Amino acid sequence: MALALIFDLDGTLIDTVYAHVFAWQRALAEAEMPIDGWRIHRRIGMSGGLFARAVAREVGRELTDAETEEIQRRHGEIFRGLLPERRPLPGAVELLAELRRRGIVHGIATSGRRPEIDASLEALGVGEETVVIERGNVARAKPAPDLFLKCQEALGVQPVDCYVVGDAVWDLLAARRARMLSIGLLSGGYGADELLAAGAFRVYEDSAELHRSLDELGFE
Amino acid sequence: MALALIFDLDGTLIDTVYAHVFAWQRALAEAEMPIDGWRIHRRIGMSGGLFARAVAREVGRELTDAETEEIQRRHGEIFRGLLPERRPLPGAVELLAELRRRGIVHGIATSGRRPEIDASLEALGVGEETVVIERGNVARAKPAPDLFLKCQEALGVQPVDCYVVGDAVWDLLAARRARMLSIGLLSGGYGADELLAAGAFRVYEDSAELHRSLDELGFE
Repeated sequence: MALALIFDLDGTLIDTVYAHVFAWQRALAEAEMPIDGWRIHRRIGMSGGLFARAVAREVGRELTDAETEEIQRRHGEIFRGLLPERRPLPGAVELLAELRRRGIVHGIATSGRRPEIDASLEALGVGEETVVIERGNVARAKPAPDLFLKCQEALGVQPVDCYVVGDAVWDLLAARRARMLSIGLLSGGYGADELLAAGAFRVYEDSAELHRSLDELGFE
Repeated sequence: MALALIFDLDGTLIDTVYAHVFAWQRALAEAEMPIDGWRIHRRIGMSGGLFARAVAREVGRELTDAETEEIQRRHGEIFRGLLPERRPLPGAVELLAELRRRGIVHGIATSGRRPEIDASLEALGVGEETVVIERGNVARAKPAPDLFLKCQEALGVQPVDCYVVGDAVWDLLAARRARMLSIGLLSGGYGADELLAAGAFRVYEDSAELHRSLDELGFE
């Protein structure tokens, strides 16, 4: 069977992690739930429900649905204010273009939602030809395996033939639960050892280094 | 000889790292030098001169003094807009208060400058009684050992009796060059293995965990 690549979006292909961290930090501080930046950073990319539960544990009480919704709304508002444009990470545009050119099976599977992710896809030059699975397509976000499994089904490949490419331990944990191999990228700000310990088969700096390493991964 | 603690400030005692990363990212993007968030993150806490040189390497050309100055000015402006208040990291205020109460020798050594650091010191409840060495007191910032050596001299202790407490590999590298032990804190967003690999004797989550662990470090 042909190998396939399934990419995370934020922090893997697009340089949005630090803006997300800071936007969450402000939204939570405004709601009088100040949380350390590093604790937010290490939870970026997990499902919103798990994130809200983690926040509740930090602040020591349950959040109401209204509170959760208001914090999410403010996060989105602050994020768009901080980062009106979307910047592809080094090598991401070129890598995706080469995968299309060489006919290497690949897709994107993100905890983000349309229409919020549309600007990122546009910046990456990703169009209708590419399989994109987003939060609205599945019941559970990462670290549940649903996004990756749905993407693999849509690509018509087997889990054992998929590499997940992600920057967060949530991507790597979801990949293990989906019985897929995974590749960690440093471009989301985790340390290499954190990614290896979470099961990454290889760690590269960014998509540019992954691009140069496709042969090491067995892509012909 | 009595053991002493020398603290870094940003990311170690005060929760400013992610605001600094994002402020640098915006200031550099405005100057048409877009740099990945994670590469900025991993350079926070090094001297401004080394930081500017690293930026120049990323963008592939030398920066003029005027460019460096303008980026630094914009960084400060954006940072103050993003984070008007200073939030101590968990346990920092209580740890410093206990060190004063128990008469444990300690000081702060930061690559930051007065008056920018004054709001942080105030938020921590640090007054005239505490030795604070800042960028203006030494010729070279971290990872040069000057800040820590100057602090140790002011405290009247020997390097061999000092623990440096920091969140960045630059603190730990400077500590080794100063012949001091060091303790890494995760509160600046590095992974534990990165800090251990850079020479940390112990890694704790934050000042609160360090506080609970003073006996493991030999403080009586």
